[in-house]
Amino acid sequence: MCYVTHGSGRTKAAVGVVVRMTTDTAPTADTTLDELLEIDPATAGLLFREARTVNVFADEPVPDEKIQAAYDLVRWGPTAMNTVPLRLLVVREPAARARLVEHMADGNKTKTLSAPLTIVAAADPSFHEHLPVLAPHMKGARERFAAGSEEMRVGMARTSALIQVGYLIIGLRAAGLHVGPMTGFDADGVDSEFFDENGWRSLVVLNVGMPASEGASHPRQARLRFDEVSLTV
Amino acid sequence: MCYVTHGSGRTKAAVGVVVRMTTDTAPTADTTLDELLEIDPATAGLLFREARTVNVFADEPVPDEKIQAAYDLVRWGPTAMNTVPLRLLVVREPAARARLVEHMADGNKTKTLSAPLTIVAAADPSFHEHLPVLAPHMKGARERFAAGSEEMRVGMARTSALIQVGYLIIGLRAAGLHVGPMTGFDADGVDSEFFDENGWRSLVVLNVGMPASEGASHPRQARLRFDEVSLTV
Repeated sequence: MCYVTHGSGRTKAAVGVVVRMTTDTAPTADTTLDELLEIDPATAGLLFREARTVNVFADEPVPDEKIQAAYDLVRWGPTAMNTVPLRLLVVREPAARARLVEHMADGNKTKTLSAPLTIVAAADPSFHEHLPVLAPHMKGARERFAAGSEEMRVGMARTSALIQVGYLIIGLRAAGLHVGPMTGFDADGVDSEFFDENGWRSLVVLNVGMPASEGASHPRQARLRFDEVSLTV
Repeated sequence: MCYVTHGSGRTKAAVGVVVRMTTDTAPTADTTLDELLEIDPATAGLLFREARTVNVFADEPVPDEKIQAAYDLVRWGPTAMNTVPLRLLVVREPAARARLVEHMADGNKTKTLSAPLTIVAAADPSFHEHLPVLAPHMKGARERFAAGSEEMRVGMARTSALIQVGYLIIGLRAAGLHVGPMTGFDADGVDSEFFDENGWRSLVVLNVGMPASEGASHPRQARLRFDEVSLTV
């Protein structure tokens, strides 16, 4: 019988595998869980366990190629009907950054001004224009969506594009970048500012770069345990 | 000057790095992009490039521990205010599966009936009950959310939980599992069927398992290029 201690508690293996039964505040290498993974512990740390939301970045530029390499992973993730509705506004110019920050919540202004790169992740309600290429087996899909309501297309685009934001955060980390995602901003304001012509709908604003050597992140907060978030029927 | 051919076109390196400039239908190992990644090509394939949506699964059970190992990665991904609103209904019993399938779109019934495991990914609008543990620095946050509108909490929970669905799909793949995510179901029907008491809101239904040896996936469809989904300002 083996025990493992982490966070504020200890637990006994119930089914032959030791699982974390505490609301952890710090991920510890749990070799019994790692044995169930197909990725190595360093990769698990890079993408999930050790990665932290960054608020203060190092003064180091983010090359376009890194974002492209991340997107080249992200784009293969599944979306409903292969609609691939995630769009990215890459904010580099100081003037554009100032326009964006106008619409950010006060607590997100300073860090967005100082990040080397900021991406506005958005959903494209006109995703159906690409369906002849993305889903050629669905004959007439573009026309059917065009005849349907915009509200339905906005809802579909938001759902899949938010799932893609999850892929994007992991993909940027896979490219060695660090991310500070934010939902505290006036989405309608950002949309009028930048997306009047293309109709994109902003979802999440992500600061991207390398962490400052000091004070880059807040202390790690707890996460819910599997038994707190799941039911089995 | 180097060229690379893939999909239907070829492109010239514009900035010293060859990027895919075609709407690819098959990811090919692009060593120049791989050099920009911190994960190895096998992991990039496992999590993104080679992974496929699975519709027909092998007759092989999915142990609970694999799902827990995946969640142990997923839970560390960032969410707004550390709300961690993703909830998982793990559907194992045939009777529960039959109740779920009643609410699936016709095209999703057969594959859901035959999958070894199905997860209903949902958002919890009562996420604020956990904030004293998840965000102890935000004094009084639970009470402020409790006094606010449920509609606002539903919206916040949906946004972060959908991003977490992105993490979940990658996390399940990291645990060596294959996923068939579906949005074609009656969400209100699923919610009344399973979530009348806890108030969860279903987002995505995911079949989980190992692929059948034949016919597991449809042919790979195209994805949009970086230049098709991005604008730089």
